[in-house]
Amino acid sequence: MNRSARASYKPSMDLVPEVLAGSRNAIARMITRAEAGYAEAVEALAQLYKHAGKAHIIGITGVPGAGKSTLVSTLIKSFTSAGHKVGVIAVDPSSPYSGGAILGDRVRMNDSAEANHAFVRSMATRGHLGGLSRSTLEAVDILDAAGYSPIIIETVGVGQDEVEIVTAAHTVVVLSAPGLGDDIQAIKAGILEIADIHVVSKSDKPEAAATVSALKGMMALGGHAGHQAWDPPIIPVSSVSGERMEELKAEIFRHREHLATSGELADRLRKTCRTRILGVAKHLFQQKFNAGPGGVEKELQLVVERVHDPRTAAIALLGWESGNEE
Amino acid sequence: MNRSARASYKPSMDLVPEVLAGSRNAIARMITRAEAGYAEAVEALAQLYKHAGKAHIIGITGVPGAGKSTLVSTLIKSFTSAGHKVGVIAVDPSSPYSGGAILGDRVRMNDSAEANHAFVRSMATRGHLGGLSRSTLEAVDILDAAGYSPIIIETVGVGQDEVEIVTAAHTVVVLSAPGLGDDIQAIKAGILEIADIHVVSKSDKPEAAATVSALKGMMALGGHAGHQAWDPPIIPVSSVSGERMEELKAEIFRHREHLATSGELADRLRKTCRTRILGVAKHLFQQKFNAGPGGVEKELQLVVERVHDPRTAAIALLGWESGNEE
Repeated sequence: MNRSARASYKPSMDLVPEVLAGSRNAIARMITRAEAGYAEAVEALAQLYKHAGKAHIIGITGVPGAGKSTLVSTLIKSFTSAGHKVGVIAVDPSSPYSGGAILGDRVRMNDSAEANHAFVRSMATRGHLGGLSRSTLEAVDILDAAGYSPIIIETVGVGQDEVEIVTAAHTVVVLSAPGLGDDIQAIKAGILEIADIHVVSKSDKPEAAATVSALKGMMALGGHAGHQAWDPPIIPVSSVSGERMEELKAEIFRHREHLATSGELADRLRKTCRTRILGVAKHLFQQKFNAGPGGVEKELQLVVERVHDPRTAAIALLGWESGNEE
Repeated sequence: MNRSARASYKPSMDLVPEVLAGSRNAIARMITRAEAGYAEAVEALAQLYKHAGKAHIIGITGVPGAGKSTLVSTLIKSFTSAGHKVGVIAVDPSSPYSGGAILGDRVRMNDSAEANHAFVRSMATRGHLGGLSRSTLEAVDILDAAGYSPIIIETVGVGQDEVEIVTAAHTVVVLSAPGLGDDIQAIKAGILEIADIHVVSKSDKPEAAATVSALKGMMALGGHAGHQAWDPPIIPVSSVSGERMEELKAEIFRHREHLATSGELADRLRKTCRTRILGVAKHLFQQKFNAGPGGVEKELQLVVERVHDPRTAAIALLGWESGNEE
């Protein structure tokens, strides 16, 4: 992919029809450009955003070691077997797969249908300077516009960015593993309360029953506030045997139905859009602030010397007219 | 004060010479206007900022119950007795004094000199929407421009705003009380590591020695990173007897000397100015974003309907031209 990209740089706008037609190569290149934040790709991403909105987006989160990768692999197989084109965006520094050797590491590829019907991509989690949420959701848009559904966003459930990303999903699956002390870790990270579906992995382990009880206890205490009309189910799964994976899939589809009929889908969409708009605005603001006329250092010196007060400096750095900002 | 303010609203610019001349009434009114965020006061505050910069600013912080108010009262007496005009800005929801009955509650006023040479003011900590840091530091500017020095900022050492405010001080005094579990609380709140001087209150209590040991142990572990050239002293004080209060004052002056001779004063000033500029810029940005052409709700709906992508919406809300923000 990289080689062909270098050989001939195709303008992002020219990639748009190819993405819409489902070209894996075009999808991969667009995601790379979104991730790198290319100005050249902005208009193309805006176009793709307008074509997106059909996919069901599943967020899967849980602390490292909970078994997210195994669960996702099993879901990929299960969805592709049922004829779905499934997309996966993994935002996880401990993720075992990288841009190059994606599917081979992840899924035991039994047939070419599975390979053609799944697109798995890891996003870098470093060097993003606040752009992680933006580029991850742009990658989801790209897969969505290309006709993939469901799209799974896998994140390690730690950190504000990661929580923000996963709450952009329609259905949030929180994975807990028995005996990892996950309960406490997850509560601290604030991810248990965003769960639409709880999955307890490694249900073949004897400690799994205690984890299920702990989750039930927490939910009885109101730990899933905000989902009054939806009682998050708790599904113990064993990835060894694939046991109860169909139940998980059924609950995901049932939750999608619930969202649509209860009106919560529209609410979530508004919330996600609001977060995305504000996120982009903050990013643009920071860029403008840093690049302001005179530059930060010059204005800073004027404030240190009390030639300017902080407000005057801020207005100058933003390149705004003084006085009209009230 | 309120009555006269209502009777005749004097433009803030007209208050500036009165503040510079040290009028307590003008100072109180300017602080009220800074706190309320009056647009009318912006230019006056900018002028006063330019006249400020002479005072030594002392931050005093510690968890509720550590004895901050008692310590500050004792310092006020001590500084005014020595001929200083001392200003106090208290940012503490548990603060025992309010705008009205300020000095009477706080200091047992022994003579009129003390009353005339101390200006104590509480800042509201609610309803500020991120403006707490801005208005607190503007209040410090006002007292500074009016010739007060030292100026004490008293904050409860919990919360990001409070920590940001107190790090704007030249000398940060962190108060720990024996037997309150303060050590752990303070470490969690990240305030112990910003201490230039540690004070252990209630040194008459038998547990005080253990608190001193705990602080020494923490410092040995590198808990005061960043002050390589300054070893924060630990001063046990008993406010009952006023014991060792003169030592605290001497350490504060010694620290001021250290800042000046080491060049750290300039570093701290730059850091504070940077934080203040960015804080004001973020505030102005949020205002502009919310008031953007079309309004947030209209743009949000366009994004929900995928007529606009989030970036286009953000640019529209900011009132910026599309394309020139890169």
